[in-house]
Formats: sequence, C-alpha cells, structure tokens
Amino acid sequence: MRHEIILSGAGGQGLILAGAILAEAAGVFEGKEVVQTQSYGIQARGGASQSTVIISNERIHFPEVLTPDILLCLSQESYENYAPNLRNGGLLVVDQHLVDVDRLRADINLLAFPFTAEAEKMNRRIAANIIALGTLAVVTSVVKPESIAKAIPVHLPERNIATALAALDVGVEMVERIEAIPQ
Amino acid sequence: MRHEIILSGAGGQGLILAGAILAEAAGVFEGKEVVQTQSYGIQARGGASQSTVIISNERIHFPEVLTPDILLCLSQESYENYAPNLRNGGLLVVDQHLVDVDRLRADINLLAFPFTAEAEKMNRRIAANIIALGTLAVVTSVVKPESIAKAIPVHLPERNIATALAALDVGVEMVERIEAIPQ
Repeated sequence: MRHEIILSGAGGQGLILAGAILAEAAGVFEGKEVVQTQSYGIQARGGASQSTVIISNERIHFPEVLTPDILLCLSQESYENYAPNLRNGGLLVVDQHLVDVDRLRADINLLAFPFTAEAEKMNRRIAANIIALGTLAVVTSVVKPESIAKAIPVHLPERNIATALAALDVGVEMVERIEAIPQ
Repeated sequence: MRHEIILSGAGGQGLILAGAILAEAAGVFEGKEVVQTQSYGIQARGGASQSTVIISNERIHFPEVLTPDILLCLSQESYENYAPNLRNGGLLVVDQHLVDVDRLRADINLLAFPFTAEAEKMNRRIAANIIALGTLAVVTSVVKPESIAKAIPVHLPERNIATALAALDVGVEMVERIEAIPQ
C-alpha cells in the first residue's frame, strides 16, 4: 500500500494545514510511514496552495509525488494544474461549486462534493478543508476519521477544535448520504 | 542563494513545528521559494524527529535534501544520523548539553549553544526549538527573526504565543552575547 495524495486549492483555503493534519493522523496515530511536503513561493504567490502527503506501509525511499493517485482540488486553477498528472485509474475529488470539470479524462474517477457550501452552512467557510479531509478519509480509506479527529487538536488553536471536529463529521456524513442512494 | 536545512532531534522536541514556522517565515513573510518536508514513520518511532526546509531565491526544481548546508541537532541520535551528510563547509548547530560532538569532521563549522538549558530557565523545556530557530536565523541570515515572529502566531495556540516570542528573543540574544566576546 502506497498512496500519493495532493491536496490543492487557492491560498487561504487551508490546504497546508489539511496536509499537516492528514500526515499526523496517518503517521502518529496509525503508525504508517508518511512524508509530507509543502511549498511556498511562485505557486503560493499565484494564489495556489498545495500539500502533498505520501502514506505507505513500507519505508518511503522516493519522497516526491510526481503522479498522485488521489487528488483533491478546491479551486479551478488547482484542477487545471494537477489533474493532468493524476495517475491512470486515480481518484479526483473536487468541490462541485468551485471546480468546473470539463473534458474529464476518461481514465480517472471523479467525485464532486459541496465542501465549501457545507462549510458556509456552518458559517465557517474556512472549514471546507476539514470537511474535505473527512470525505477523503471515508472514500479512500487511507486514514480513519478517528485518527484525523486525534490530529486536529495538535494543529489547531483550542477555540477552533470543536468546529473542526464538527466539520470532520460533516465530511464523513456527506459520503454516507451518497452511498445511501439506491443504485 | 539556496539553503538546505535539516532541523533534527528527538520526538517531542518540536522540530516539525519549528520547520513549519521557518518555512512560513521565509515563504510567506519574505516571499522566498520554500519547500518543507517532514517524515513520520520508522525514524519517528525510533524517537527521532526531523524536518527539512529548502529556502531559495529561485524556483526549487529538486525538492529533496540529500546534503544539507545547515544542520541543527538537538539530540545525540540525530547528530549521529545527519552530521555525516552535512555538506563540506556546512554549519552544524547543536545543543551543547545534549550532543557530544566527538570526532568532529574537520571540514565543517560547529556552533554549540545551551538551547534546552535556556528553555528550562523559562520553565518551558519545549521552547528550546524556538530558541534554536532564533539563533539559527541570526547565525545563518536565511530568515529574519522578525519574520519568525510573524509566523509564530500562525502555528501556535494563542496561550503559547507570548512564550514563543520570548524564546525567539532568547535565541537571538544568545548569538549577540557570543559575538560580543573579544577575539
């Protein structure tokens, strides 16, 4: 098992924080091998923001993510940037109101969720990152939502922990609603 | 200008947090190109902890740190692990009470400071990481202490910010004391 994950979006959407929480959840609370990388610079100043997380059961010798198998996009620009590199058969998860997926590659799987709209319902637009983490956890099984819940207090100030845990639940439940749709 | 920095020590010494603060300081508050990587896994479970930060004026094409030019070691184990990879002419900064530098390579520069002892004087042993960051900033000029001060509130809970800023000052002043020694 080796998953290469890119969390991407615009600056201010909290993707670097989301990457740190995901890495801590898998690395500290599930004892997996994890390498997490984030970049600041040209990309960040262009408004883009991204964090990469590699989660593996075995020692990670090559820590760079060239072709992710899991890609989260919370902005159109990040979709344009990273979707071309998604691995054949990979999973693309987008915010359905912020990303217009035209000309979808036929060889990948797409899931679209209203992460930011749900966060706005909580009056915390910034919480879309944690909602998306909850959804990703359930959809991909790379990490348990309970581990994310344990990692949240490590990375968030006390006053934001309750909201983040609620956002995590929203993300988890969003998938459960979809899975309940009769086929 | 390209600096490759490894911050290393034992688990619980806050080196991953220190790396995140350093990256934010240089990337967000000084507009430099920065790639920051941290690992969880075999190393972490062995008690070791490390964060790597690349700071550059130009786009970073190769984001892996194989031979750092700046190495901070807050534990003996991290010194044994990483010092052999330090670049020729590189700078090694250690906690003078926690690292026994025997058989020092002749081709590197060593600075030893009482980071943890100073943190204990503040009754906050965990603050040794921020003290060390302040010292590193002054010694290497890779980032301004003022930028670290701006990055601290982004990564620390409100109740710890004042202590961290005080620790930063301790680190900065520690270098100034040394530089005042007559040659």
